[in-house]
Amino acid sequence: MSHTHRSKDKLVARIRRLKGQMEAVERALESEQPCGDVLQLLASIRGALSGLTVELMQEHLSEHVVQAETDAERRQAASELAEALRTYMRGE
Amino acid sequence: MSHTHRSKDKLVARIRRLKGQMEAVERALESEQPCGDVLQLLASIRGALSGLTVELMQEHLSEHVVQAETDAERRQAASELAEALRTYMRGE
Amino acid sequence: MSHTHRSKDKLVARIRRLKGQMEAVERALESEQPCGDVLQLLASIRGALSGLTVELMQEHLSEHVVQAETDAERRQAASELAEALRTYMRGE
Amino acid sequence: MSHTHRSKDKLVARIRRLKGQMEAVERALESEQPCGDVLQLLASIRGALSGLTVELMQEHLSEHVVQAETDAERRQAASELAEALRTYMRGE
Repeated sequence: MSHTHRSKDKLVARIRRLKGQMEAVERALESEQPCGDVLQLLASIRGALSGLTVELMQEHLSEHVVQAETDAERRQAASELAEALRTYMRGE
Repeated sequence: MSHTHRSKDKLVARIRRLKGQMEAVERALESEQPCGDVLQLLASIRGALSGLTVELMQEHLSEHVVQAETDAERRQAASELAEALRTYMRGE
Repeated sequence: MSHTHRSKDKLVARIRRLKGQMEAVERALESEQPCGDVLQLLASIRGALSGLTVELMQEHLSEHVVQAETDAERRQAASELAEALRTYMRGE
Repeated sequence: MSHTHRSKDKLVARIRRLKGQMEAVERALESEQPCGDVLQLLASIRGALSGLTVELMQEHLSEHVVQAETDAERRQAASELAEALRTYMRGE
C-alpha cells in the first residue's frame, strides 16, 4: 500500500482507535450496559469508519489513479476504486 | 443490557469478529498490501457493522419498547432508539 | 398515515422540495452540466432524504409504537419500523 | 456532462423514475396511507439513489479521470470526485 508510506502511521493509529472502540462495545455488552449506550457506540464507530474510508479513497484516487506512472496502472487503480465504491454502497 | 441476556454471547461473538476484521486492516496497512484490498476490507466491515446495528435496534425495539413494563420505561427506551437513529444517520 | 395529520403539510412540503431537487438533476443532465455538479446535487438529495426518513421513523415510533392503543397495534407498528430499518440499511 | 452523452438518456430515465417514486410518497402522505408503507417507499428511493450515484461516480472516474486529455483536467476531475465522496458520506 505504497501511497500510505507517508501516512501509514496515521492510518494505523486510526485503525487502532477503531479497534479500541470495538473493545468498548464488547465490554459494554459483557457488563450489560444500557442498550442505548451500545447503540451510540456503534453509531460512532460507523462515523469513524466512514471518515477513514473516504480518506483512503481520496488518497488512492490522488496517488494511484491521478499520479499513476502508466495507463495500465491507472486503469487498474481506477477499477479497484470503482469496485470499492460498489461494495461500500451495497454493504451499508 | 438486559435484552441481550439470551443473545449476549452471539452479539459478543459478532463484535469479536469485527475486531478481527479491524486487525486484518491493521496488518494489511503494516505489510503494505494493495490499497484496493484495504478498501475492500473496510467496505466489508461497514456491512457487518450495519447488520449488527440493525439487529440490535430491532432487539431494543422489541424488548425494551414493545415489552416495556411501564409507560415511563417505554418512553425512555423509545427516546434512546430515536437518538441512536439520529446519530447513526448523521454519522455515516 | 394518521400520525402525520398534524405534520402532514410539513412532510408534503419536504417531499416536494426533494422532487424539485430531482428536477434540478434532470435539467443538469439534459443541459450537460459538469458531472461534478450533478454528483453534488445527488449527494444533497441523499442528505435530505435521510433527514426526512429519520424524522418519519421517529414520529412513527412515538405515535404508533409508544402511544399505541392496544398491544396488537403496538406490535404491528414496531414490526413495520423494524422492516423499514432492514430495508433502509440494506438499500443503501 | 460530456461523459453521459452516450448514457444520458438512460440516466435521465432513472432520474424520472426516482421523481415518480417521490410522487408516490407525496400521494401516500396525502391519502394518509399507513406510515410503514411510506417508510418502505423512502427506503426504496434511497436504494435507487445510491445505485444511480455509484454508477455516475464510476462513469466520472472512467471518462473524466482515467481518460482525461491533460493532467490539469485529470486533477480537476479527481478533485470533483473527491468532493462528491466527502459530501456523500457526510450527507447520509
